[in-house]
Amino acid sequence: MGRWEPNSRGRLAKAAVELFAAQGFEQTTGAQIAARAGMHERSFFRLFPDKREVFFYAVETAQREAIEAIADAPEGVAPIDAVAAALEQRCEIIQQHPEAALTRHNLVSANAELAERDLSKHAELADGMAEALGERGTPEPVAKLIAHTAVVVFRVSFDRWIADPKRQNLSAMFRDGLSELASVLGSRGRSA
Amino acid sequence: MGRWEPNSRGRLAKAAVELFAAQGFEQTTGAQIAARAGMHERSFFRLFPDKREVFFYAVETAQREAIEAIADAPEGVAPIDAVAAALEQRCEIIQQHPEAALTRHNLVSANAELAERDLSKHAELADGMAEALGERGTPEPVAKLIAHTAVVVFRVSFDRWIADPKRQNLSAMFRDGLSELASVLGSRGRSA
Repeated sequence: MGRWEPNSRGRLAKAAVELFAAQGFEQTTGAQIAARAGMHERSFFRLFPDKREVFFYAVETAQREAIEAIADAPEGVAPIDAVAAALEQRCEIIQQHPEAALTRHNLVSANAELAERDLSKHAELADGMAEALGERGTPEPVAKLIAHTAVVVFRVSFDRWIADPKRQNLSAMFRDGLSELASVLGSRGRSA
Repeated sequence: MGRWEPNSRGRLAKAAVELFAAQGFEQTTGAQIAARAGMHERSFFRLFPDKREVFFYAVETAQREAIEAIADAPEGVAPIDAVAAALEQRCEIIQQHPEAALTRHNLVSANAELAERDLSKHAELADGMAEALGERGTPEPVAKLIAHTAVVVFRVSFDRWIADPKRQNLSAMFRDGLSELASVLGSRGRSA
């Protein structure tokens, strides 16, 4: 079973996050995740190297989508606008599933291992976007500056959104963050 | 021995980086590091939880110095200028020891575990600076935006500097990076 069913990785990832949320990350085994997804344990470890990786399947998907969005942006679009649009798209997906985002956030906050991997997955997301900009002709250091900064703004906005009990417009918070940062950087060197 | 000598952690960190560079990270044991620093293995594990932590002793020191620099900045200095000055100070220290920086860079590039810890140590550096800004009255989300963005610019500038065989002025590269980012963010939304 499982072998011919589509989206095995997605099903495992969904089962994993449900189990992590219900019984904790440490307490959950690969065998339990596989069983919940209706698959063999062997299949689990064939599709994911470890428990941490299955948790970040969603970030991987987001990375692919963001890279695609940058590649598909019309020719005249500036690098910063292409990256901002790609991350706004991600904001909108998160906004549609606030419960899932909160579950993931709580798991990451409670586990140092997950928090560390979360950081490196977001750095990979930024590197992937920087490469996609590179393919559109943006020189590497600028592409990295733009992509990694946009991810910083995304993460700060996400924390702000999670802290807001109403979880209002994440996209708007992200855009406000970019504007705020632009104004801060623009005023550099003007203080006493 | 060791017990009453000052700066045991610093001596262990120096011995560790020398051994990592000479024989590789994986091949080096806590006992070897302790022996090279003229200390007992027990002392090593009392002072550092693991091999990864001893490698990042220098980043910890940098974090303390950066936080101090922000706390000591005159009252009228804007948050972005306080953070930029703190990281420029770090740029200057690195510039004085380019060989040490290159050794560390090569070790981090060659080891996924170290690369992951390097990311989280730099995130801690940013969080520490954001807290120091908070104590000066900067609201949290803006403080985080500024500190994490400045660390992004610092890291991108460092990579640029490492890639330059002459390893010219890192401070200047960092300042240029901030200006470049300011101009990119300032032009947001003006493309097709």
